[in-house]
Amino acid sequence: DRTPRHQQGSHTDWLTLNIGGRPFTTTRSTLVSKEPDSMLANMFRQMDVWGNKRDERGAYLIDRSPEYFEPILNYLRHGQLIINEGVNLRGVLEEARFFGMERLAEQLEAAIKSSQPPEDHSPIS
Amino acid sequence: DRTPRHQQGSHTDWLTLNIGGRPFTTTRSTLVSKEPDSMLANMFRQMDVWGNKRDERGAYLIDRSPEYFEPILNYLRHGQLIINEGVNLRGVLEEARFFGMERLAEQLEAAIKSSQPPEDHSPIS
Amino acid sequence: DRTPRHQQGSHTDWLTLNIGGRPFTTTRSTLVSKEPDSMLANMFRQMDVWGNKRDERGAYLIDRSPEYFEPILNYLRHGQLIINEGVNLRGVLEEARFFGMERLAEQLEAAIKSSQPPEDHSPIS
Amino acid sequence: DRTPRHQQGSHTDWLTLNIGGRPFTTTRSTLVSKEPDSMLANMFRQMDVWGNKRDERGAYLIDRSPEYFEPILNYLRHGQLIINEGVNLRGVLEEARFFGMERLAEQLEAAIKSSQPPEDHSPIS
Amino acid sequence: DRTPRHQQGSHTDWLTLNIGGRPFTTTRSTLVSKEPDSMLANMFRQMDVWGNKRDERGAYLIDRSPEYFEPILNYLRHGQLIINEGVNLRGVLEEARFFGMERLAEQLEAAIKSSQPPEDHSPIS
Repeated sequence: DRTPRHQQGSHTDWLTLNIGGRPFTTTRSTLVSKEPDSMLANMFRQMDVWGNKRDERGAYLIDRSPEYFEPILNYLRHGQLIINEGVNLRGVLEEARFFGMERLAEQLEAAIKSSQPPEDHSPIS
Repeated sequence: DRTPRHQQGSHTDWLTLNIGGRPFTTTRSTLVSKEPDSMLANMFRQMDVWGNKRDERGAYLIDRSPEYFEPILNYLRHGQLIINEGVNLRGVLEEARFFGMERLAEQLEAAIKSSQPPEDHSPIS
Repeated sequence: DRTPRHQQGSHTDWLTLNIGGRPFTTTRSTLVSKEPDSMLANMFRQMDVWGNKRDERGAYLIDRSPEYFEPILNYLRHGQLIINEGVNLRGVLEEARFFGMERLAEQLEAAIKSSQPPEDHSPIS
Repeated sequence: DRTPRHQQGSHTDWLTLNIGGRPFTTTRSTLVSKEPDSMLANMFRQMDVWGNKRDERGAYLIDRSPEYFEPILNYLRHGQLIINEGVNLRGVLEEARFFGMERLAEQLEAAIKSSQPPEDHSPIS
Repeated sequence: DRTPRHQQGSHTDWLTLNIGGRPFTTTRSTLVSKEPDSMLANMFRQMDVWGNKRDERGAYLIDRSPEYFEPILNYLRHGQLIINEGVNLRGVLEEARFFGMERLAEQLEAAIKSSQPPEDHSPIS
């Protein structure tokens, strides 16, 4: 079946996250399915958990970095960790930890370890 | 005739895609013509397939990465695969696969193979 | 009347292009003066050529890449071809060809030739 | 009443900063907690200090660089200084100084010293 | 009255520039103080000079590159010329010349000279 999942029925639930001021549009199932034990999944499993913390356009407010959230959302979409050259892996790790995505955080820690000499504490990746 | 095709008549159909929160404005013929067997072409060949899955501005909602979609849309516009330095080819490949663009996916796989040593599994391009 | 106030009655004629979803604000004289024989200049020489192909904010719709259009518009503004490191010259070339800017296309072809070995067909600049 | 709905009656106090034209959405506690002696913390400790300096959407106006503010806001969120490759450390330092964040400024000065030879005065990082 | 509320009655005079389609919010004193003899300072010294050349949100229209204007505005804010890696110095120079900022243009010319071999005429920095 080539029909994308979100075209079937109306049980897919579109929503927009306002991450630090930038909108990310996605579906509830993307946020919930891939890492079901994460805080992010818990936050969006039920309809009304976040209640009144929305902006004036109805997007869910999250006080985090939009730039480093982008690869995390893509990971939830298709299961691959894919990061552009120049983007600091430690920034993505902070977000993975915040959202309670433990397997992803481990993957990031391993990638950081293999890309930096252990005595390097510079803020730049 | 120097007049661009989309200026002739009214059979060209402008539309906006909301890819993960970022708007991409294009025409139906761009989405449909270049890879006619792809899922993307199938999704937009007829007027009403996506029905009610639109955002509040009328843009078609697609739960994917805007950054990696950009070179795919350009490829549909002019047939060339052109990717900036630093953009992860594997990210573009995930989108090509999602949209069922097989020829493009093969081209990307070949480019990834020739740019990375086979034992490298790092998340960075 | 949908025409924004700033477009009425001033001898400089401001307009906004919607290039693939991103707005570019410029003047008609910038689009027309530097390469007067190009398709782009022809498209904007007269007031009403593009007629009804505008978005809901009145911007002229063009189904092309915003990223690679940026250096082309700057070239029209001041006559210099200036491209950031990492931006693919071949992407800019595709736009120069689409808009019928022949001198600029030649300049870009020469720059591509001098920056890449002839047998390199990789999608990355 | 100009207060957006999402700011009323929730114990977390969301606000948007308009830094040089780009919106950053965050909470008052993020701005106030991490470096409580900074000018930034002082500016946002009380509700009404900035009074009438808001834009038409209610965002607090600050006449500074959005690009270099981004890592500063992330630092306030999680306590880590994380900067992408290619971003000029001196740009972030200027913002840290402007906002009176002394510990962060010292950290940045040390990072700049260790990444540049002392006789290099080039504007590029 | 088109003047936004936040511009009335505060001694700091906020304004937004629409540079080629991207908004930059700043104050009149930033534009006027640092290089008082520049064309930019002259343009904004008095309230009504640019008269009717505003967009529909009240931002002052300037037909130039937003990307290369960014470091120029930061320079006016704090007096430092700070440019990210990968951004073409020649692009910033074109803007400095357009706005009549002579000292800044000289600084940029010196930086370009010291970063490029004299026979290099490539469009890439």
